[in-house]
Amino acid sequence: MAAGARPPRVGAVQERVALERLAGARVGRLATVDPLGNPHLVPFVFALDGGRIVSAVDHKPKGSRDLRRIQNILGNPSVTVLVDHYREDWSRLWWVRADGRARIVSDGAELERVVSLLTVKYRQYRARPPSGPAIVIDIHRIRGWSADT
Amino acid sequence: MAAGARPPRVGAVQERVALERLAGARVGRLATVDPLGNPHLVPFVFALDGGRIVSAVDHKPKGSRDLRRIQNILGNPSVTVLVDHYREDWSRLWWVRADGRARIVSDGAELERVVSLLTVKYRQYRARPPSGPAIVIDIHRIRGWSADT
Repeated sequence: MAAGARPPRVGAVQERVALERLAGARVGRLATVDPLGNPHLVPFVFALDGGRIVSAVDHKPKGSRDLRRIQNILGNPSVTVLVDHYREDWSRLWWVRADGRARIVSDGAELERVVSLLTVKYRQYRARPPSGPAIVIDIHRIRGWSADT
Repeated sequence: MAAGARPPRVGAVQERVALERLAGARVGRLATVDPLGNPHLVPFVFALDGGRIVSAVDHKPKGSRDLRRIQNILGNPSVTVLVDHYREDWSRLWWVRADGRARIVSDGAELERVVSLLTVKYRQYRARPPSGPAIVIDIHRIRGWSADT
């Protein structure tokens, strides 16, 4: 190995595989950071739109605290999304993590596009599409890991 | 309602239910924050030990970057743990989130206790218990949400 070259990480999967797994996942977890440096974490449904992860605040009854993800992104756009596959057979574990910058989209054609993508992926949204706002994450780095590689 | 009293949050579950769900979960996600304010997220197996969430670094082959959770905790002990239950029937969704302060335990009786608790919960660890270090999280706040409440 050439001096300075990093060995491939054990368990690392190709970016193509990581993106396929991310696109196919039905649920992810979104981590944001509040102004005091505390992490915040919610499960969320999302769609992959090229190099972006898109989601929207939906109609489920929520208290104001549930919008902490929005407040946090407005203050610090750095976010991380994780999808993972748990099985009791630990040789079948895998996960994909996408780091990126998030922005809030409250109206216009971009919000319509997000709602459309979510409604295609999730039939549950068809009777009642999410109202928004949308969270659009530009992926800057994606990493995948599999126990079996 | 008395002036100043907050209404119960829609979907909130009792702390007892939240703790039961947390204890029973087979996998959680651990969010930490790096020195630049970026969130980091990993899936992890854990056990509940009273008001603590305990986990350990195990023997799976890993690159040095996988210890970012440890580095982050040493710099900023504020962490969040999420367990969630996804089903296509969205009336059955639930999640539990525990916020707390984490510390790293590298040896001694406390590490032995963590390894013992993990090995009882996860038979997968019995042939090869995790080496550690352990991550011990004192839970400061727990919140649970169910779609059906």
